[in-house]
Amino acid sequence: MTPWPHADLTVLDFLTFDWLCLNEVLERPIYKDHDEQGIRLMIDQVSQILAQEFSANTRVGDLNEPYQNAQGEVITAPFLKQAINSVREAGLFVTGFSADEGGLGLPMTVHMTLQGLMMGANIGAAAFGMLTMGNAKLIQTFGTSAQIKAFAEPAIKGDFMGTMCLSEPQAGSSLADITTKAVFECDHELGAQYRLFGSKMWISAGDHDLCRHITHLVLAKIPNHEGRVEASTKSISLFIVPKIIGDGTRNDVSVSGLNHKMGYRTTPNCYMNFGAGDHLVDDRAGAVGYLIGQPGQGLMQMFLMMNEARISVGLGAAMLSWRGFHEAKAYAATRLQGRLIGGAANELVSIDQHSDVKRQLLIGQALSEGGLALCLFGASLLEDEFTHPDPVKKEEAKALLALLIPLIKTFPSEMGQEALSQAIQTCAGAGYTRDMIIEQLYRDNRLNPIHEGTTGIQGLDLVMRKIKKEGLTSYEMLRKRIEATLSEASSEFPDEVLWLRRAWERLDEAAHQISQTEPTLAAAHATAFLMAMGHGVVGWIWLWQMVSETKLARAKPHINISGLQRQRVGRAFLILELPRIESWLFGLLEGLDPTL
Amino acid sequence: MTPWPHADLTVLDFLTFDWLCLNEVLERPIYKDHDEQGIRLMIDQVSQILAQEFSANTRVGDLNEPYQNAQGEVITAPFLKQAINSVREAGLFVTGFSADEGGLGLPMTVHMTLQGLMMGANIGAAAFGMLTMGNAKLIQTFGTSAQIKAFAEPAIKGDFMGTMCLSEPQAGSSLADITTKAVFECDHELGAQYRLFGSKMWISAGDHDLCRHITHLVLAKIPNHEGRVEASTKSISLFIVPKIIGDGTRNDVSVSGLNHKMGYRTTPNCYMNFGAGDHLVDDRAGAVGYLIGQPGQGLMQMFLMMNEARISVGLGAAMLSWRGFHEAKAYAATRLQGRLIGGAANELVSIDQHSDVKRQLLIGQALSEGGLALCLFGASLLEDEFTHPDPVKKEEAKALLALLIPLIKTFPSEMGQEALSQAIQTCAGAGYTRDMIIEQLYRDNRLNPIHEGTTGIQGLDLVMRKIKKEGLTSYEMLRKRIEATLSEASSEFPDEVLWLRRAWERLDEAAHQISQTEPTLAAAHATAFLMAMGHGVVGWIWLWQMVSETKLARAKPHINISGLQRQRVGRAFLILELPRIESWLFGLLEGLDPTL
Repeated sequence: MTPWPHADLTVLDFLTFDWLCLNEVLERPIYKDHDEQGIRLMIDQVSQILAQEFSANTRVGDLNEPYQNAQGEVITAPFLKQAINSVREAGLFVTGFSADEGGLGLPMTVHMTLQGLMMGANIGAAAFGMLTMGNAKLIQTFGTSAQIKAFAEPAIKGDFMGTMCLSEPQAGSSLADITTKAVFECDHELGAQYRLFGSKMWISAGDHDLCRHITHLVLAKIPNHEGRVEASTKSISLFIVPKIIGDGTRNDVSVSGLNHKMGYRTTPNCYMNFGAGDHLVDDRAGAVGYLIGQPGQGLMQMFLMMNEARISVGLGAAMLSWRGFHEAKAYAATRLQGRLIGGAANELVSIDQHSDVKRQLLIGQALSEGGLALCLFGASLLEDEFTHPDPVKKEEAKALLALLIPLIKTFPSEMGQEALSQAIQTCAGAGYTRDMIIEQLYRDNRLNPIHEGTTGIQGLDLVMRKIKKEGLTSYEMLRKRIEATLSEASSEFPDEVLWLRRAWERLDEAAHQISQTEPTLAAAHATAFLMAMGHGVVGWIWLWQMVSETKLARAKPHINISGLQRQRVGRAFLILELPRIESWLFGLLEGLDPTL
Repeated sequence: MTPWPHADLTVLDFLTFDWLCLNEVLERPIYKDHDEQGIRLMIDQVSQILAQEFSANTRVGDLNEPYQNAQGEVITAPFLKQAINSVREAGLFVTGFSADEGGLGLPMTVHMTLQGLMMGANIGAAAFGMLTMGNAKLIQTFGTSAQIKAFAEPAIKGDFMGTMCLSEPQAGSSLADITTKAVFECDHELGAQYRLFGSKMWISAGDHDLCRHITHLVLAKIPNHEGRVEASTKSISLFIVPKIIGDGTRNDVSVSGLNHKMGYRTTPNCYMNFGAGDHLVDDRAGAVGYLIGQPGQGLMQMFLMMNEARISVGLGAAMLSWRGFHEAKAYAATRLQGRLIGGAANELVSIDQHSDVKRQLLIGQALSEGGLALCLFGASLLEDEFTHPDPVKKEEAKALLALLIPLIKTFPSEMGQEALSQAIQTCAGAGYTRDMIIEQLYRDNRLNPIHEGTTGIQGLDLVMRKIKKEGLTSYEMLRKRIEATLSEASSEFPDEVLWLRRAWERLDEAAHQISQTEPTLAAAHATAFLMAMGHGVVGWIWLWQMVSETKLARAKPHINISGLQRQRVGRAFLILELPRIESWLFGLLEGLDPTL
């Protein structure tokens, strides 16, 4: 196994500092405690800990799938407790919190870079921290000070862990149909106290042996005056449901089974019962929960966290595929097989010298690093949405990010799988065995197009909400940025500019058409449009990186940037990947319904 | 788990009888013992046995991976012995042999249909029979009557099993570099006797507990007069190396380890030593082997079997993805979630009514059934190559098949993986768990783009050998057939004809260009050209099926063929898949080298 994440941190450094101009962000007063060198040092140190504790145990987690013991307790892989403690001590679970909140107060791109490295090192182990942070952040954003003190602060300190409980057996994509019921019980210093009754499905880290205290954030419905729950998202509220209630009582929360997945096995995935009477509280069934904010705000609260959650999924996918690319590259550099065309009969070459393997590696790199750059760009928009000094830029960042979120979630997830498939192909038989890590990354990543909103749901979000409902204003904003890059690149990269301009002309046509197409037909093309736009945006991101690289070379002629290869890989993306846009858009542009 | 292969045998029936006109083949004297009804009955009966013995045990084989016990013996999954016996008794291991040879004397499309159903039912269990048949067939084709009697006949009777030993640790795609050495020992009634020394890698069913007698067919090199083996395919010979020598002696063949794969786990995959001295024969190290044919013919002999072997791989892939499609379709028909756009709030619908799920299912069906039809078409060409009464047609079939083999191997393998990914996506979280079989099919099929010549090797075979070296004659032959279908379809399916004609115009351009491009650049585009041509051919095959369906409807107005859906699925292929050709060909047509 190639050490990870120690390979190619120069690319990450280029993306954050040179391409996304992190130093400009560091000038914002809020980041006065950080500087370039400190951040570089942190990334380097964190990488070493991750390589040792997380990356080296990737396969261990896969082979030691969580199980329930005779008492029904969920037992996780033996390496996890120590690995998570080490990584927590390195600060990796609080990179997203301000110093006031007990965190590191890092800019969003740095926070995301660190999270990404963690996910690439061991996505199933990283999930515990990611979920806990998301959970604590949500409580901190919407909770009362008592709730923050009781649940968010211990999570940030590392004493509690957390989950998000949304899906139910009969309601996954369609949250309007959840039926978990919350019945008011009494007032409490931690908020209005309810009893919850219902089942939740697909709950990652829903229970485990890593931490006594697990705080569940549970979507549930308060019954209407007739005592029934309504099939609408408006009736959904959000509750804090601790596994252990303050006085040490076990709450009425239980795990009725674990899902056995193709990959991502290090994280237990639970089928959970709330209020089934497995642990009576005050002699009664019903899981005790405390309302966050007002009734009916549950989905809004959850969705305000969604942007960051979806960037995280995309980023995790990008990192998994990037790691796979590095594995394949290292293998291809040392595996001798065959000869060059026209080469001498006795001159065996390493397979990375064969055209077809070069092509595979370039696709793997272009897709994984393209996805990575897209996610970090998303993180920089999130940064600007909250900390940009110019309110106009703030708004623009917010609007752009909203438009791009479905792409940021989807491109790395879907294309990461293709990149990983290329990585397997490069290693051929060896890549298909469990002696190499790529096959696991391929299984692990296959979840990413599914959770946090499937690719189909992202397509509908982009087309039905972001484009049809909200109009093309954000799209035009994006187009302006792209045109600026095209102008900037036109003299240096005329071919690439031509290809990208042509692609965006087709995307423009498609965007206008889909914005006017009747809904059912638009829905039939939504995923294809999402994929096409993803490739268009990543094509732009590659050209933009090419421009940045030449600027960097000019600005710092003394440093050696030959390893960056932005022009070679970017050009490969534009030749091998960008033309796929045509095929995704064909049916839409011809006004055809392929699903009839 | 949806019962398999009981779903949709009507499509198979249409493909063999109506589309490929099996009844015309049945009129050839060699098939006088078979008729339409008998074949239907056989397929139906065999399907029932496969469903019971193979299909129902798909997961059992995945969970009970073969291992070596303390004595080094390879122990397979507990269901296998009985399952293989039942399936063998049903005749499934001799469908490819003539009645004289002890087989069923079936036309090639029927043989392949049965083999395909077997592979779809349990590809890892099917492998034992497939390998044994290929092994026996090769001995029968090139062996002496003594060799046939000693090794082929017992295999056909079911007493022996067989393997193919080609790859070595240092030589997979590059067989010229194998170093296993065969040293002449003496003459023997079973042929010239040699002692073999060397290691073989990736040997499927290389050892197991299902049968005492395992016959290895081993590629090895006879040293030249200086006692060295040459790095050339011309020095490769083929040897029969039995695990147990005639008198009951254990031959010097041993398993030094098993590969642990992502999928396809039911079949043990062995790292093998020949002549390592683990079992001395006459007190000496060296595996006893009998030369087949003449020295230096080994690769030619092996490759004469390659067409059928590569059709088999494609067919297995098509069947795995087809099974996955059926699973997803059944799931989607019963899974209630969400509402139709504009539908009533209280009307939950099954997810197969949502546009995006319709699209997923159509892609899965179009790719898997497209691959299936392509393989059966390949089988019909193999049939004609050997049994067509008209020698001109014989030659034409042979030439067409040679051209199409890389596509037949690759399209179902690569597109099967995409189809299976769509099937997982349709079932979302459930599809990602091991409660459903799709995730296993996805892991199992991932081997198919690798073994029997990787996709990259197929691309080189198509471009460097079949097109650049042999010229465009076969390609033109194929084009004539396609033009005939386009003419036939033009009044009924004008849109589809337009799309397909446009695609083939681009392919023509690309074929001419690549035939003249210098070799290294051609090699860089070989895989993309292969993929593009695969889609062009399958596009044609779909249009051809659409024409056949309308003919059938006209010819037999009394039968209900509404379930066939050739027009709906074929049209979906032409809208959603065919346009990908453009993207694969872009770099080639623009004369660009993406690998620079």
